[in-house]
Amino acid sequence: MGSDSDMPVMAKAARILDQFGVSYDMHIISAHREPDAFFAYAKNAESAGYRVIIAGAGMAAHLSGMCAAIFPLPVIGVPMKTTALGGRDSLYSIVQMPTGIPVATVAIDGGENAGILAAKILATSDPALLDRIKEHGRQMKEAVELKDARLQGTGYEGYMKG
Amino acid sequence: MGSDSDMPVMAKAARILDQFGVSYDMHIISAHREPDAFFAYAKNAESAGYRVIIAGAGMAAHLSGMCAAIFPLPVIGVPMKTTALGGRDSLYSIVQMPTGIPVATVAIDGGENAGILAAKILATSDPALLDRIKEHGRQMKEAVELKDARLQGTGYEGYMKG
Amino acid sequence: MGSDSDMPVMAKAARILDQFGVSYDMHIISAHREPDAFFAYAKNAESAGYRVIIAGAGMAAHLSGMCAAIFPLPVIGVPMKTTALGGRDSLYSIVQMPTGIPVATVAIDGGENAGILAAKILATSDPALLDRIKEHGRQMKEAVELKDARLQGTGYEGYMKG
Amino acid sequence: MGSDSDMPVMAKAARILDQFGVSYDMHIISAHREPDAFFAYAKNAESAGYRVIIAGAGMAAHLSGMCAAIFPLPVIGVPMKTTALGGRDSLYSIVQMPTGIPVATVAIDGGENAGILAAKILATSDPALLDRIKEHGRQMKEAVELKDARLQGTGYEGYMKG
Amino acid sequence: MGSDSDMPVMAKAARILDQFGVSYDMHIISAHREPDAFFAYAKNAESAGYRVIIAGAGMAAHLSGMCAAIFPLPVIGVPMKTTALGGRDSLYSIVQMPTGIPVATVAIDGGENAGILAAKILATSDPALLDRIKEHGRQMKEAVELKDARLQGTGYEGYMKG
Amino acid sequence: MGSDSDMPVMAKAARILDQFGVSYDMHIISAHREPDAFFAYAKNAESAGYRVIIAGAGMAAHLSGMCAAIFPLPVIGVPMKTTALGGRDSLYSIVQMPTGIPVATVAIDGGENAGILAAKILATSDPALLDRIKEHGRQMKEAVELKDARLQGTGYEGYMKG
Amino acid sequence: MGSDSDMPVMAKAARILDQFGVSYDMHIISAHREPDAFFAYAKNAESAGYRVIIAGAGMAAHLSGMCAAIFPLPVIGVPMKTTALGGRDSLYSIVQMPTGIPVATVAIDGGENAGILAAKILATSDPALLDRIKEHGRQMKEAVELKDARLQGTGYEGYMKG
Amino acid sequence: MGSDSDMPVMAKAARILDQFGVSYDMHIISAHREPDAFFAYAKNAESAGYRVIIAGAGMAAHLSGMCAAIFPLPVIGVPMKTTALGGRDSLYSIVQMPTGIPVATVAIDGGENAGILAAKILATSDPALLDRIKEHGRQMKEAVELKDARLQGTGYEGYMKG
Repeated sequence: MGSDSDMPVMAKAARILDQFGVSYDMHIISAHREPDAFFAYAKNAESAGYRVIIAGAGMAAHLSGMCAAIFPLPVIGVPMKTTALGGRDSLYSIVQMPTGIPVATVAIDGGENAGILAAKILATSDPALLDRIKEHGRQMKEAVELKDARLQGTGYEGYMKG
Repeated sequence: MGSDSDMPVMAKAARILDQFGVSYDMHIISAHREPDAFFAYAKNAESAGYRVIIAGAGMAAHLSGMCAAIFPLPVIGVPMKTTALGGRDSLYSIVQMPTGIPVATVAIDGGENAGILAAKILATSDPALLDRIKEHGRQMKEAVELKDARLQGTGYEGYMKG
Repeated sequence: MGSDSDMPVMAKAARILDQFGVSYDMHIISAHREPDAFFAYAKNAESAGYRVIIAGAGMAAHLSGMCAAIFPLPVIGVPMKTTALGGRDSLYSIVQMPTGIPVATVAIDGGENAGILAAKILATSDPALLDRIKEHGRQMKEAVELKDARLQGTGYEGYMKG
Repeated sequence: MGSDSDMPVMAKAARILDQFGVSYDMHIISAHREPDAFFAYAKNAESAGYRVIIAGAGMAAHLSGMCAAIFPLPVIGVPMKTTALGGRDSLYSIVQMPTGIPVATVAIDGGENAGILAAKILATSDPALLDRIKEHGRQMKEAVELKDARLQGTGYEGYMKG
Repeated sequence: MGSDSDMPVMAKAARILDQFGVSYDMHIISAHREPDAFFAYAKNAESAGYRVIIAGAGMAAHLSGMCAAIFPLPVIGVPMKTTALGGRDSLYSIVQMPTGIPVATVAIDGGENAGILAAKILATSDPALLDRIKEHGRQMKEAVELKDARLQGTGYEGYMKG
Repeated sequence: MGSDSDMPVMAKAARILDQFGVSYDMHIISAHREPDAFFAYAKNAESAGYRVIIAGAGMAAHLSGMCAAIFPLPVIGVPMKTTALGGRDSLYSIVQMPTGIPVATVAIDGGENAGILAAKILATSDPALLDRIKEHGRQMKEAVELKDARLQGTGYEGYMKG
Repeated sequence: MGSDSDMPVMAKAARILDQFGVSYDMHIISAHREPDAFFAYAKNAESAGYRVIIAGAGMAAHLSGMCAAIFPLPVIGVPMKTTALGGRDSLYSIVQMPTGIPVATVAIDGGENAGILAAKILATSDPALLDRIKEHGRQMKEAVELKDARLQGTGYEGYMKG
Repeated sequence: MGSDSDMPVMAKAARILDQFGVSYDMHIISAHREPDAFFAYAKNAESAGYRVIIAGAGMAAHLSGMCAAIFPLPVIGVPMKTTALGGRDSLYSIVQMPTGIPVATVAIDGGENAGILAAKILATSDPALLDRIKEHGRQMKEAVELKDARLQGTGYEGYMKG
């Protein structure tokens, strides 16, 4: 991530990766404030064994695009919500990459989805991980079913009262 | 893709996959106009051996998100440019997925980048493919260097005259 | 509705339907998190006697469009306000449907209007319901007249003090 | 419709209604340029036997909302594409109706979908019309299947050459 | 105004008109909820002696445009800020009027400016009112000069502490 | 107007003023490129007998707002359509004036409406001009009626063939 | 700055200039409310020794553009965040200047960056100032490194607990 | 510039610099496609004697921001118009820089203004250049005066006929 203000969003990526048993490193690295350190990090990432990078940043968010320019494997971009423009600036800066340098972009503040997408990418060659992802899908389904069952039991006025 | 009007954009994905030697199927399937066929296709995709799906669609573009709801491996979404809203409608319909169901979104009309991203995903477990991707990066670099060399030779007025 | 976070908005639809004496079911069903259950529900809706479906969802809101792809009678879409984009994402994902599959879209967070629109649709063949809708219109008119009469009595400074 | 410049879009509504065998009147009536005639028309519409009104207009499009304020049955709004703002102005002026006065809004320039939606509304009490709507859905499905079959036969390069 | 929720904004228009000694009526009239009363009001306004109408409304704001369609003298529109779209919907619904029916639009929530504009319109034939408007301009100028003088005295840290 | 590229839009204002018999001057004056000349012009406008100024400009359009800061009578702003942003930049730069300095803003490229609004402002003290404005309204109404009569005669397919 | 409501943002410019040892004046001057004082100030700025002007303003923000029309050296514009439009109005009014009159625009509410940019401009001819700017860059880099070191020590859950 | 498609816009910067007698280099360098070459270039720029960098790029435009992260003197960003989003993506990616790393942003496609701004920056320590900039301002003023004189001579109908 480019700033520690992004941590609440990026922590969601970390938690879901923990749940899936996917190992990861988490760093605060600013492409703008420490370009040398950033370059060294991105150039070294492949040989360090990274297979996917998740980059979250806000405003004129260049971190993910510059990662994708240097690191040859998939880069996932997480646009941060911003107070002035709601995150449109982050989204456009991340998703509108020129031909040749894709960034796999998720929703504004979509940290958890970035983690799930990283796991799905790794699951293309890891059947056990794919099973855990499917199990997670079943849990999501059951959570919705439980909510609907509760709604059928209480009615909407009761449901909203909690 | 959801409509044959998307084919010029999606053909760019196909061409780059051909160049990388990645095999693929290309189909026109509409989640809206043939939901049964779409469901059957998406449910069967994993057992048919698909490891990544690229889904391109425009306007209220539901194809990629519904693929991601059914197919457990990565889904890449390509938002199509639209005449009224420039593709903002397609982009938001594809990238703003709720928690749990990520779609790896690329730029508006970003067919070629979708193909490259799919290749990068598969390259996480395919070193030979990764080498071809790196070679493609070197070619992009050389193309820019050649343009700059030409500019230094001709000056900008000469360059623009072609 | 696609999530129980949409319930405060969808409850407004329910309350006005109660007021009009229109019977309905209310369910939490996610097209993304339980696509099989969603498909079964939508395919069964006509034979279960549904004549209109109101579908509320937020962000990349596919619920209403997928309902309209499967259910042959009118589908009303309610775009939910979102924190990042104000509901533009929900609105575009619901209203910008491709040719052939309309969704009758109401305002962002327009739950009550969705209920009124459903009643108006049913009133095309139910004169008694139409009378109740007209009566509701008269009540709205009287409420505005009462406010204006109060303003003429108190002046605006008095009115704002309550 | 509010202006004859809207006719190419509104003609699509008329053609699909012709195809479904639904009778209709088509008028150019401007809420802004002839408010008296508009008011008389809207007030008389119910007794004239109208059960649905489709109102298409552009820019600050008030025609559909004012219809919905006067006519007690469903009003469908068609936002016209505009040169300056792409139709966002028309869309917001039509869909963002205040509580109590819904307009069933379709996509920008969505004339055909407005016609289909009107037919679906009438089909809530007309099984024969519902059958024709379902048949239309089957034709849409077959058209997509044919396109996909052609793609499988020719490949995408052949398909695009026509 | 179309709703009493607009009163805090419209009260600013009333206060500045009071300050300028311009007489006015203030009404809550909804073009959508009481179209007959609205029509009668707008048609009667000229003979009742009104020379300018200020109409404030939010969302799909049709009040000002419909006033301008009926009342032949200037109509000033005040777009209300909205929670979902920030007032873009109100602004576009008010300012983007078709040729022939202008609405003099001020800023979102610009109630005071609407009052000043109404006074300036009347001042085209009222020199004494024009003098009061000029005096108001001088007071605005002095207020800024005083703030700057205070800033020069205290410095910005002192100024912000109050 | 701020540039001669605005002339096709501003000519529409001139033509309608000619039609109403309202005398006017038309100048190309740039607040940005000749601020001294602009200031002198704006300061002199009242004593030169101007009662309304129509200012058209595009992009970061400051002409109308600076006129309104100097000239004490009504200023009408015409936002010009722009290639990059469709005129949103012009519109926001003109309509979003701070408290105290209103600009009466019309639609993007709304030159004719600016002329009509100017005439309506002058008609607040000119009954003969008001009569001409009402006559213009009747002509607009008749033009729509004629179009509708033609549509009823030819049907929409015939109408569109011309 | 155009209003004292802009002071919290503009104070950030002042603080960083203090830190860099760059002398400056800070004034509240409104181009709209005191155009004469503004004009005199802008015309006098060059002879008073100003080499850069930073102008912050909100909504239809004309201050920076009018400065740039009069003052021949660099003008930096700071668009203020606005409640209705998030600052898009300020941004477009400042950055979209017509050919010939550039304003060096920074981010919405980017007061500190305006100060840094002013220092960088002056540093083009001041090596000692350039050294202080580089030192500031090193401090930013170290601050990020410290945060990352802390994250590596505590983990993200610990980091977020503070 | 990041791509030779940007050359028509960047050539305008070059031409005005030629006119002002300011020496410059022009290069096509892509931060995304040749990050190593870009980094080397940006790091070497100061010692190579560059005092200002103008960086033009489109879509997710990172070139200017990454220059500003590495090069300690002023960087001017030129957002390129884009087909899908009109240049909003380029503008946000360039102007919305985080605190500490300003980019002096000009209008979308504002190549000429970028050149003028660069000259103004250098003119802070070059009186002869400042004189040439002032002369350019006088020429702009005269060009507008000539146009207005022609308009007064021909009238607007004559002017538009050319």
